[in-house]
Amino acid sequence: MGKVVASASMSLDGFVAHDNNDPGRLFDWYEAGDVEVVTASEPASFHLTPASAGYWREWVGQIGCLVVGRLLFDITDGWSGEHPLGVPFVVLTHEAPTDWAHARTGNAHFVTDGIEAAVARAQEIAGDRTVALAAGTIAGQALAAGLVDEVAVDLVPVVLGTGHRYFADVDPAAVRLGDPTAIIPSTRVTHMVFPVEK
Amino acid sequence: MGKVVASASMSLDGFVAHDNNDPGRLFDWYEAGDVEVVTASEPASFHLTPASAGYWREWVGQIGCLVVGRLLFDITDGWSGEHPLGVPFVVLTHEAPTDWAHARTGNAHFVTDGIEAAVARAQEIAGDRTVALAAGTIAGQALAAGLVDEVAVDLVPVVLGTGHRYFADVDPAAVRLGDPTAIIPSTRVTHMVFPVEK
Repeated sequence: MGKVVASASMSLDGFVAHDNNDPGRLFDWYEAGDVEVVTASEPASFHLTPASAGYWREWVGQIGCLVVGRLLFDITDGWSGEHPLGVPFVVLTHEAPTDWAHARTGNAHFVTDGIEAAVARAQEIAGDRTVALAAGTIAGQALAAGLVDEVAVDLVPVVLGTGHRYFADVDPAAVRLGDPTAIIPSTRVTHMVFPVEK
Repeated sequence: MGKVVASASMSLDGFVAHDNNDPGRLFDWYEAGDVEVVTASEPASFHLTPASAGYWREWVGQIGCLVVGRLLFDITDGWSGEHPLGVPFVVLTHEAPTDWAHARTGNAHFVTDGIEAAVARAQEIAGDRTVALAAGTIAGQALAAGLVDEVAVDLVPVVLGTGHRYFADVDPAAVRLGDPTAIIPSTRVTHMVFPVEK
Protein backbone atom coordinates (compact mmCIF):
# COMPACT_ATOMS: atom_id res chain seq x y z
CA MET A 1 0.00 0.00 0.00
CA GLY A 2 1.34 3.42 -0.89
CA LYS A 3 2.35 6.25 1.40
CA VAL A 4 -0.05 8.87 2.71
CA VAL A 5 1.45 12.34 2.36
CA ALA A 6 0.14 15.73 3.41
CA SER A 7 1.47 18.53 1.22
CA ALA A 8 1.05 22.26 1.04
CA SER A 9 2.71 25.58 0.51
CA MET A 10 3.05 27.16 3.95
CA SER A 11 4.10 30.57 5.19
CA LEU A 12 6.94 30.78 7.68
CA ASP A 13 4.32 31.35 10.37
CA GLY A 14 2.36 28.24 9.52
CA PHE A 15 -0.49 29.36 7.28
CA VAL A 16 -1.61 27.75 4.01
CA ALA A 17 -4.00 30.50 2.92
CA HIS A 18 -5.54 33.76 4.00
CA ASP A 19 -8.87 33.64 5.84
CA ASN A 20 -10.68 34.15 2.51
CA ASN A 21 -8.84 31.09 1.08
CA ASP A 22 -6.62 33.26 -1.12
CA PRO A 23 -3.10 31.79 -1.09
CA GLY A 24 -1.62 35.24 -1.62
CA ARG A 25 2.13 35.10 -2.20
CA LEU A 26 2.33 31.46 -1.11
CA PHE A 27 2.07 30.37 -4.74
CA ASP A 28 4.68 32.78 -6.14
CA TRP A 29 7.07 29.86 -6.60
CA TYR A 30 4.73 28.38 -9.21
CA GLU A 31 5.84 31.18 -11.51
CA ALA A 32 9.40 31.72 -10.28
CA GLY A 33 11.28 30.03 -13.11
CA ASP A 34 11.50 29.10 -16.75
CA VAL A 35 10.66 25.40 -16.70
CA GLU A 36 7.15 25.02 -18.08
CA VAL A 37 5.00 22.41 -16.39
CA VAL A 38 1.87 21.49 -18.31
CA THR A 39 -1.14 20.30 -16.33
CA ALA A 40 -4.25 18.28 -17.18
CA SER A 41 -6.58 21.26 -16.75
CA GLU A 42 -6.61 24.93 -15.74
CA PRO A 43 -4.18 26.43 -15.01
CA ALA A 44 -2.86 24.89 -18.22
CA SER A 45 0.76 25.48 -17.26
CA PHE A 46 3.06 27.16 -14.79
CA HIS A 47 6.75 27.93 -14.70
CA LEU A 48 9.14 26.59 -12.08
CA THR A 49 12.81 26.89 -11.33
CA PRO A 50 14.82 23.79 -12.28
CA ALA A 51 15.05 22.86 -8.59
CA SER A 52 11.31 23.18 -8.02
CA ALA A 53 10.52 21.42 -11.30
CA GLY A 54 12.64 18.43 -10.31
CA TYR A 55 10.97 18.23 -6.94
CA TRP A 56 7.52 18.75 -8.40
CA ARG A 57 7.85 16.05 -11.05
CA GLU A 58 9.09 13.47 -8.58
CA TRP A 59 6.29 14.36 -6.18
CA VAL A 60 3.48 14.41 -8.72
CA GLY A 61 4.82 11.32 -10.46
CA GLN A 62 4.17 9.21 -7.38
CA ILE A 63 0.60 10.36 -6.65
CA GLY A 64 -2.16 7.85 -7.25
CA CYS A 65 -5.08 9.62 -5.60
CA LEU A 66 -5.89 12.81 -3.70
CA VAL A 67 -8.10 13.37 -0.67
CA VAL A 68 -9.71 16.80 -0.53
CA GLY A 69 -12.33 18.51 1.59
CA ARG A 70 -15.74 19.63 0.49
CA LEU A 71 -14.75 23.30 0.70
CA LEU A 72 -11.95 22.89 -1.84
CA PHE A 73 -14.24 20.80 -4.03
CA ASP A 74 -16.87 23.52 -3.97
CA ILE A 75 -14.39 26.36 -4.53
CA THR A 76 -12.98 24.64 -7.63
CA ASP A 77 -16.24 22.96 -8.71
CA GLY A 78 -14.28 19.74 -8.46
CA TRP A 79 -11.85 21.05 -11.07
CA SER A 80 -14.70 20.34 -13.53
CA GLY A 81 -13.90 16.68 -12.96
CA GLU A 82 -10.29 16.90 -14.14
CA HIS A 83 -7.76 17.69 -11.43
CA PRO A 84 -4.71 19.55 -12.74
CA LEU A 85 -2.51 16.66 -11.59
CA GLY A 86 -4.49 14.25 -13.75
CA VAL A 87 -5.37 11.93 -10.89
CA PRO A 88 -8.63 10.81 -9.26
CA PHE A 89 -9.70 12.37 -5.99
CA VAL A 90 -11.72 11.42 -2.95
CA VAL A 91 -13.92 14.16 -1.50
CA LEU A 92 -14.65 13.95 2.22
CA THR A 93 -18.09 15.46 2.70
CA HIS A 94 -21.17 15.23 4.87
CA GLU A 95 -23.34 14.56 1.84
CA ALA A 96 -22.40 13.66 -1.74
CA PRO A 97 -23.78 15.99 -4.41
CA THR A 98 -26.53 14.38 -6.47
CA ASP A 99 -26.50 16.72 -9.43
CA TRP A 100 -22.85 17.55 -10.01
CA ALA A 101 -22.34 18.46 -13.65
CA HIS A 102 -18.99 16.69 -14.00
CA ALA A 103 -19.78 13.39 -12.28
CA ARG A 104 -19.47 11.54 -15.60
CA THR A 105 -15.68 11.96 -15.61
CA GLY A 106 -15.56 9.31 -12.91
CA ASN A 107 -12.58 11.00 -11.25
CA ALA A 108 -14.42 12.13 -8.13
CA HIS A 109 -15.26 9.74 -5.30
CA PHE A 110 -17.37 10.92 -2.39
CA VAL A 111 -16.92 9.54 1.10
CA THR A 112 -19.26 10.56 3.90
CA ASP A 113 -18.11 8.49 6.87
CA GLY A 114 -15.00 10.25 8.05
CA ILE A 115 -11.32 10.75 7.37
CA GLU A 116 -10.25 7.16 7.96
CA ALA A 117 -12.74 5.90 5.38
CA ALA A 118 -11.70 8.63 2.95
CA VAL A 119 -8.01 7.73 3.20
CA ALA A 120 -8.80 4.00 2.97
CA ARG A 121 -10.85 4.59 -0.19
CA ALA A 122 -8.03 6.68 -1.67
CA GLN A 123 -5.52 3.92 -0.89
CA GLU A 124 -7.72 1.40 -2.70
CA ILE A 125 -7.74 3.67 -5.73
CA ALA A 126 -4.03 4.52 -5.52
CA GLY A 127 -2.77 0.96 -5.05
CA ASP A 128 0.98 1.15 -4.53
CA ARG A 129 1.06 4.83 -5.36
CA THR A 130 0.95 7.76 -2.95
CA VAL A 131 -2.22 9.20 -1.47
CA ALA A 132 -1.85 12.99 -1.28
CA LEU A 133 -3.82 15.00 1.25
CA ALA A 134 -4.83 18.61 0.79
CA ALA A 135 -3.52 20.82 3.57
CA GLY A 136 -5.84 22.31 6.12
CA THR A 137 -8.75 20.42 7.60
CA ILE A 138 -8.10 17.19 5.70
CA ALA A 139 -4.40 16.99 6.55
CA GLY A 140 -5.12 18.03 10.13
CA GLN A 141 -7.75 15.35 10.62
CA ALA A 142 -5.55 12.70 9.02
CA LEU A 143 -2.54 13.70 11.13
CA ALA A 144 -4.65 13.64 14.27
CA ALA A 145 -5.88 10.16 13.33
CA GLY A 146 -2.34 8.88 12.77
CA LEU A 147 -2.95 8.22 9.07
CA VAL A 148 -0.09 10.31 7.62
CA ASP A 149 3.35 8.97 6.74
CA GLU A 150 4.99 12.19 5.56
CA VAL A 151 4.37 15.91 5.88
CA ALA A 152 5.59 17.82 2.82
CA VAL A 153 6.00 21.55 3.34
CA ASP A 154 6.75 24.01 0.58
CA LEU A 155 8.08 26.61 3.00
CA VAL A 156 7.55 30.11 1.66
CA PRO A 157 9.46 33.12 3.06
CA VAL A 158 6.39 35.19 3.82
CA VAL A 159 4.50 36.03 6.99
CA LEU A 160 0.70 35.90 6.74
CA GLY A 161 -0.18 36.69 10.35
CA THR A 162 -3.64 35.12 10.15
CA GLY A 163 -5.43 32.63 7.95
CA HIS A 164 -5.88 28.90 7.61
CA ARG A 165 -3.20 26.90 9.39
CA TYR A 166 -1.50 23.78 8.06
CA PHE A 167 -1.76 22.11 11.46
CA ALA A 168 -5.09 23.56 12.56
CA ASP A 169 -6.79 20.54 14.08
CA VAL A 170 -3.72 18.62 15.15
CA ASP A 171 -3.18 17.44 18.69
CA PRO A 172 0.56 18.13 19.10
CA ALA A 173 0.96 15.16 21.41
CA ALA A 174 -0.32 12.88 18.65
CA VAL A 175 2.16 14.01 15.99
CA ARG A 176 5.87 13.38 16.21
CA LEU A 177 7.89 14.44 13.21
CA GLY A 178 11.38 13.35 12.26
CA ASP A 179 14.15 15.41 10.70
CA PRO A 180 13.52 16.29 7.06
CA THR A 181 14.31 13.58 4.53
CA ALA A 182 14.48 16.20 1.79
CA ILE A 183 15.40 19.89 1.80
CA ILE A 184 15.41 21.49 -1.63
CA PRO A 185 16.15 25.22 -1.82
CA SER A 186 14.54 27.09 -4.67
CA THR A 187 13.23 30.57 -5.46
CA ARG A 188 10.42 31.83 -3.19
CA VAL A 189 10.23 28.37 -1.59
CA THR A 190 12.21 25.70 0.21
CA HIS A 191 10.76 22.23 -0.37
CA MET A 192 10.94 20.10 2.78
CA VAL A 193 9.63 16.62 3.61
CA PHE A 194 9.22 15.49 7.22
CA PRO A 195 8.54 11.84 8.11
CA VAL A 196 5.88 11.16 10.74
CA GLU A 197 7.28 8.97 13.51
CA LYS A 198 4.91 6.14 14.38
CA MET B 1 27.02 49.51 12.11
CA GLY B 2 26.36 45.83 12.55
CA LYS B 3 23.37 43.79 11.45
CA VAL B 4 20.20 43.39 13.50
CA VAL B 5 19.12 39.75 13.58
CA ALA B 6 16.09 38.10 15.13
CA SER B 7 16.77 34.52 16.08
CA ALA B 8 14.81 31.71 17.71
CA SER B 9 14.00 28.05 17.72
CA MET B 10 10.56 27.72 16.14
CA SER B 11 8.12 24.86 15.73
CA LEU B 12 6.96 23.98 12.24
CA ASP B 13 3.69 25.74 13.06
CA GLY B 14 5.37 28.98 14.07
CA PHE B 15 5.65 28.90 17.86
CA VAL B 16 8.72 29.72 19.96
CA ALA B 17 7.38 28.45 23.29
CA HIS B 18 4.31 27.05 24.96
CA ASP B 19 1.87 29.47 26.58
CA ASN B 20 3.63 28.95 29.93
CA ASN B 21 6.96 29.96 28.26
CA ASP B 22 8.27 26.38 28.37
CA PRO B 23 10.13 25.70 25.10
CA GLY B 24 9.21 22.03 25.31
CA ARG B 25 10.93 19.98 22.62
CA LEU B 26 12.05 23.10 20.74
CA PHE B 27 15.41 22.94 22.50
CA ASP B 28 16.07 19.22 21.94
CA TRP B 29 18.73 20.14 19.40
CA TYR B 30 20.83 21.72 22.14
CA GLU B 31 21.53 18.18 23.38
CA ALA B 32 21.40 16.29 20.07
CA GLY B 33 25.12 15.73 19.54
CA ASP B 34 28.55 15.21 21.02
CA VAL B 35 30.18 18.59 20.48
CA GLU B 36 30.36 20.28 23.87
CA VAL B 37 29.73 24.01 23.86
CA VAL B 38 30.73 25.78 27.05
CA THR B 39 28.83 28.93 27.99
CA ALA B 40 29.57 31.87 30.25
CA SER B 41 26.91 30.89 32.80
CA GLU B 42 24.17 28.32 33.44
CA PRO B 43 23.59 26.07 31.62
CA ALA B 44 27.35 25.59 31.81
CA SER B 45 27.43 23.55 28.62
CA PHE B 46 25.33 21.81 26.02
CA HIS B 47 26.05 19.28 23.30
CA LEU B 48 25.44 19.91 19.62
CA THR B 49 25.86 17.97 16.42
CA PRO B 50 28.88 19.08 14.36
CA ALA B 51 26.51 20.84 11.93
CA SER B 52 24.72 22.74 14.69
CA ALA B 53 27.99 23.51 16.48
CA GLY B 54 29.44 25.05 13.34
CA TYR B 55 26.35 27.16 12.80
CA TRP B 56 26.15 28.10 16.47
CA ARG B 57 29.78 29.23 16.77
CA GLU B 58 29.56 31.39 13.66
CA TRP B 59 26.31 32.91 14.89
CA VAL B 60 27.40 33.56 18.47
CA GLY B 61 30.82 34.73 17.36
CA GLN B 62 29.31 37.71 15.61
CA ILE B 63 26.98 38.91 18.39
CA GLY B 64 27.90 42.16 20.11
CA CYS B 65 24.74 42.81 22.10
CA LEU B 66 21.30 41.32 22.72
CA VAL B 67 17.93 42.99 23.04
CA VAL B 68 15.49 41.17 25.31
CA GLY B 69 12.09 41.87 26.80
CA ARG B 70 11.28 42.42 30.43
CA LEU B 71 9.49 39.07 30.68
CA LEU B 72 12.59 37.12 29.69
CA PHE B 73 14.69 39.27 31.98
CA ASP B 74 12.38 38.52 34.89
CA ILE B 75 12.13 34.79 34.13
CA THR B 76 15.91 34.44 34.10
CA ASP B 77 16.61 37.12 36.71
CA GLY B 78 18.73 38.70 34.01
CA TRP B 79 20.87 35.59 33.89
CA SER B 80 22.28 36.86 37.21
CA GLY B 81 24.00 39.52 35.16
CA GLU B 82 25.98 37.09 32.98
CA HIS B 83 24.24 36.01 29.80
CA PRO B 84 25.26 32.50 28.66
CA LEU B 85 26.56 34.01 25.41
CA GLY B 86 28.90 36.26 27.37
CA VAL B 87 27.59 39.46 25.83
CA PRO B 88 25.88 42.57 27.19
CA PHE B 89 22.12 42.92 26.81
CA VAL B 90 19.59 45.71 26.49
CA VAL B 91 16.31 45.15 28.33
CA LEU B 92 13.25 46.88 26.89
CA THR B 93 10.98 47.66 29.81
CA HIS B 94 8.42 50.14 31.01
CA GLU B 95 10.45 50.83 34.13
CA ALA B 96 14.04 49.92 34.99
CA PRO B 97 14.50 47.95 38.21
CA THR B 98 16.09 50.00 40.99
CA ASP B 99 17.18 47.18 43.25
CA TRP B 100 18.37 44.43 40.91
CA ALA B 101 20.93 42.30 42.72
CA HIS B 102 23.20 41.84 39.72
CA ALA B 103 23.34 45.38 38.41
CA ARG B 104 27.01 45.65 39.36
CA THR B 105 28.03 43.34 36.48
CA GLY B 106 27.32 46.23 34.14
CA ASN B 107 26.07 43.86 31.42
CA ALA B 108 22.44 44.92 31.58
CA HIS B 109 21.21 48.15 30.01
CA PHE B 110 17.61 49.25 30.52
CA VAL B 111 15.73 51.21 27.88
CA THR B 112 12.23 52.49 28.56
CA ASP B 113 11.37 54.48 25.44
CA GLY B 114 10.49 51.83 22.91
CA ILE B 115 11.93 49.28 20.53
CA GLU B 116 13.70 51.76 18.25
CA ALA B 117 15.59 53.23 21.18
CA ALA B 118 16.44 49.77 22.49
CA VAL B 119 17.86 48.63 19.17
CA ALA B 120 19.75 51.90 18.74
CA ARG B 121 21.30 51.52 22.21
CA ALA B 122 22.26 47.92 21.42
CA GLN B 123 23.87 49.03 18.17
CA GLU B 124 25.94 51.61 20.06
CA ILE B 125 27.13 48.88 22.39
CA ALA B 126 27.70 46.32 19.62
CA GLY B 127 29.60 48.62 17.28
CA ASP B 128 30.28 46.66 14.09
CA ARG B 129 29.02 43.44 15.61
CA THR B 130 25.55 41.96 15.36
CA VAL B 131 22.62 42.95 17.52
CA ALA B 132 20.60 39.83 18.30
CA LEU B 133 16.92 40.07 19.17
CA ALA B 134 15.06 37.59 21.32
CA ALA B 135 12.12 36.04 19.52
CA GLY B 136 8.58 36.89 20.47
CA THR B 137 7.49 40.37 21.40
CA ILE B 138 10.88 41.99 20.86
CA ALA B 139 11.49 40.47 17.45
CA GLY B 140 7.90 41.14 16.44
CA GLN B 141 8.08 44.80 17.42
CA ALA B 142 11.44 45.24 15.69
CA LEU B 143 10.22 43.54 12.52
CA ALA B 144 7.11 45.69 12.52
CA ALA B 145 9.28 48.79 12.89
CA GLY B 146 11.53 47.75 9.99
CA LEU B 147 14.61 47.43 12.21
CA VAL B 148 15.55 43.84 11.39
CA ASP B 149 18.06 42.80 8.71
CA GLU B 150 17.80 39.03 9.05
CA VAL B 151 15.39 36.52 10.53
CA ALA B 152 17.18 33.40 11.77
CA VAL B 153 14.93 30.41 12.36
CA ASP B 154 16.05 27.20 14.00
CA LEU B 155 13.19 25.21 12.50
CA VAL B 156 12.25 22.30 14.72
CA PRO B 157 10.17 19.37 13.43
CA VAL B 158 7.49 19.56 16.10
CA VAL B 159 3.96 20.91 16.17
CA LEU B 160 3.01 22.92 19.25
CA GLY B 161 -0.54 23.89 18.30
CA THR B 162 -0.66 26.88 20.63
CA GLY B 163 1.82 29.11 22.42
CA HIS B 164 3.91 32.18 21.79
CA ARG B 165 4.42 32.91 18.10
CA TYR B 166 7.66 34.07 16.47
CA PHE B 167 5.76 36.59 14.37
CA ALA B 168 3.07 37.55 16.87
CA ASP B 169 2.93 41.29 16.44
CA VAL B 170 4.07 41.54 12.86
CA ASP B 171 2.08 43.30 10.20
CA PRO B 172 2.58 40.92 7.27
CA ALA B 173 2.44 43.77 4.78
CA ALA B 174 5.41 45.37 6.53
CA VAL B 175 7.70 42.36 6.34
CA ARG B 176 9.04 40.97 3.10
CA LEU B 177 11.49 38.12 3.43
CA GLY B 178 13.93 36.85 0.82
CA ASP B 179 14.94 33.27 0.12
CA PRO B 180 17.14 31.76 2.81
CA THR B 181 20.83 32.69 2.66
CA ALA B 182 21.67 29.67 4.80
CA ILE B 183 19.99 26.28 5.24
CA ILE B 184 21.87 23.94 7.55
CA PRO B 185 20.30 20.52 8.23
CA SER B 186 21.06 19.00 11.60
CA THR B 187 19.42 16.71 14.14
CA ARG B 188 16.07 17.89 15.56
CA VAL B 189 16.57 21.23 13.78
CA THR B 190 17.18 22.87 10.43
CA HIS B 191 19.01 26.19 10.78
CA MET B 192 17.69 28.78 8.31
CA VAL B 193 18.46 32.46 7.80
CA PHE B 194 16.07 34.73 5.87
CA PRO B 195 17.08 38.23 4.80
CA VAL B 196 14.54 40.99 5.29
CA GLU B 197 13.95 42.86 2.03
CA LYS B 198 14.00 46.62 2.56
